[in-house]
Amino acid sequence: MFERYEALSKKLGIDHSVLLGPMDLVSGGKLAAAVTQAGGLGIIGGGYGDEAWLREEFSQAQGARVGVGFITWSLSRQPHLVDVCIEHSPVAVMFSFGDASKHVEKVKKAGILSICQVQTAEMAREAVAYGADIIVAQGAEGGGHGIACGTLPLVPNVVDAVGDKVPVVAAGGIADGRGFAASLALGASGVLLGTRFYASEEAIGHADAKRRIVDCKGGEETIRGILFDMARDNVWPSPYTGRVLRNDFSDRWIGRERDLLQHLHTERPRFLEARANHEFDTAPVIAGESAGLIHDVRPAKAIVDDLVREMSEILGYAGARGPRDAKAAA
Amino acid sequence: MFERYEALSKKLGIDHSVLLGPMDLVSGGKLAAAVTQAGGLGIIGGGYGDEAWLREEFSQAQGARVGVGFITWSLSRQPHLVDVCIEHSPVAVMFSFGDASKHVEKVKKAGILSICQVQTAEMAREAVAYGADIIVAQGAEGGGHGIACGTLPLVPNVVDAVGDKVPVVAAGGIADGRGFAASLALGASGVLLGTRFYASEEAIGHADAKRRIVDCKGGEETIRGILFDMARDNVWPSPYTGRVLRNDFSDRWIGRERDLLQHLHTERPRFLEARANHEFDTAPVIAGESAGLIHDVRPAKAIVDDLVREMSEILGYAGARGPRDAKAAA
Ligand SMILES: Cc1cc2nc3c(=O)[nH]c(=O)nc-3n(C[C@H](O)[C@H](O)[C@H](O)COP(=O)(O)O)c2cc1C
Ligand SMILES: Cc1cc2nc3c(=O)[nH]c(=O)nc-3n(C[C@H](O)[C@H](O)[C@H](O)COP(=O)(O)O)c2cc1C
Repeated sequence: MFERYEALSKKLGIDHSVLLGPMDLVSGGKLAAAVTQAGGLGIIGGGYGDEAWLREEFSQAQGARVGVGFITWSLSRQPHLVDVCIEHSPVAVMFSFGDASKHVEKVKKAGILSICQVQTAEMAREAVAYGADIIVAQGAEGGGHGIACGTLPLVPNVVDAVGDKVPVVAAGGIADGRGFAASLALGASGVLLGTRFYASEEAIGHADAKRRIVDCKGGEETIRGILFDMARDNVWPSPYTGRVLRNDFSDRWIGRERDLLQHLHTERPRFLEARANHEFDTAPVIAGESAGLIHDVRPAKAIVDDLVREMSEILGYAGARGPRDAKAAA
Repeated sequence: MFERYEALSKKLGIDHSVLLGPMDLVSGGKLAAAVTQAGGLGIIGGGYGDEAWLREEFSQAQGARVGVGFITWSLSRQPHLVDVCIEHSPVAVMFSFGDASKHVEKVKKAGILSICQVQTAEMAREAVAYGADIIVAQGAEGGGHGIACGTLPLVPNVVDAVGDKVPVVAAGGIADGRGFAASLALGASGVLLGTRFYASEEAIGHADAKRRIVDCKGGEETIRGILFDMARDNVWPSPYTGRVLRNDFSDRWIGRERDLLQHLHTERPRFLEARANHEFDTAPVIAGESAGLIHDVRPAKAIVDDLVREMSEILGYAGARGPRDAKAAA
């Protein structure tokens, strides 16, 4: 269990295999750098792909060793962004949601690690076949877009499919050392967290959004669907749906997608205005079921430290001497 | 971690805190007895509550120390079944899906343990408030009815809510020692498995149904919804939905509940006939996402043995001397 974990840390050149989810507009350069400085791997959220934003956030990372992650189906409309990334020599480029074969090839040629986020064992097999160096198995609990299988059965399923070839990282529903320890027990080599890092001091995001994550009592206060994608005119290719915190808007329209379509001419402007004004009774807070386990907004370093400490306590892990520790000792 | 696990085993008077899910029409007396004989706790599936079936299955258990479990909202229509159970002195009575306060009171008076299966931390708090001795936290991955939160974030959430008062058992998506070990890492005291035991030799159930569980490749080949409940005229109180293996019937109607309602006069007879004839392209196989981890139909004892062995290997657990081991040594 720990050999796998340490091997991935080594592969990524970090102390702890704790990865920041590349959250669109949330995982900026500052947060990514903070996660890296804490010994994990910060991954900038390249999202749908906005070149100016990307350059700005790389500069915010101030040269820290970070990765960057994209929404693949959207990136494929502007593949040159991969070159923009390569210019910045990221530790890894992560691809989620769609066939990343072309991008993976380019990244590999540049000698950079490629990470593919998948939601089924079959998708993992495909990604490994086209060259993914690391697989993230993302369960349905996760914040943001995904599909339908829970992290607990998904991770071993993906490990059985590709674990003999590449390291598998667990994502979805992990917010503390218990989820971290459980992921390693399931056969994962590391973990990737989104929602937990959203509720960090360094995350880009409105204080009220972070507050709602802290206030969320459990997964039942989140919802997976396409309501918000409909409202913002950004419905994803099937079968992807998105998980957000429930709010007045979702409670009003849930199960009534057809009615919402009929009322879009009035609902969409209302929605866009609310989003611009950070009114989260209408605008969505993108977050996963792990929100129920998050009780504070903290610095990213405190989050990583606690994750590693709790995991080590639960599993009786004596700890590896990471590059950082070795340096300190030297 | 192991103290909690051993404390629950002790409370239940068993060797290993591995519980059989009380699967309606699947967990009969024979399977329950086999799980108990393997050192776990067999729980007969009292389901909606059928007195003749219940008496028959208690007799099939041939005096083995077993429990029994009910669908609470249905049991509440014929509460005398609790008395029928008490006659048979089960180790525990389990209640799932609904307010079990009255039944728990009765069971407690008879000196029998009560187990409540819940899907949120709030439901766990309520059940403990009305006297539940043990809580099962059931994640959305699970086979059969449930709600929406994944096991990995749900279990720690429920442990934080009630874990200082009662043991919490994890259910949903667990099929091997990895899921078992992960559950203990999450703070659970034990595990409850349904789908894995469905694919056992002793389970009541058609060979073709078990075969489909074995053939299932992952959670994406299951579906949670109310299509089959509509077809059999047994729609549950909201918010419960049921997870089954996808098949031709669900692929045809998914997302078209309204159309199905319009065609029920022809679809329901077709459906009932298919069910009577074990035609699983139309009739449902009730099973969870863990089906993707199940590759064989085995005796219940082999399942329990492997679960305990794998969990012990993963977590480095030296093993407790259960009543059974102690007896063997004496
Ligand atoms: C606010 C938010 C935005 C996200 N945006 C992206 C994204 O742009 N690209 C991506 O690959 N994943 C995105 N994700 C998903 C994460 O990569 C990750 O799978 C998920 O957060 C893991 O589950 P957790 O939220 O329970 O930690 C996002 C998640 C959140 C919470
Ligand atoms: C075929 C089948 C029938 C079930 N019937 C019941 C039932 O009657 N009462 C109940 O409390 N739970 C029932 N369950 C749910 C189990 O108690 C348990 O929560 C679930 O099986 C755990 O998830 P797993 O299937 O991934 O192991 C059923 C599950 C299956 C697979």
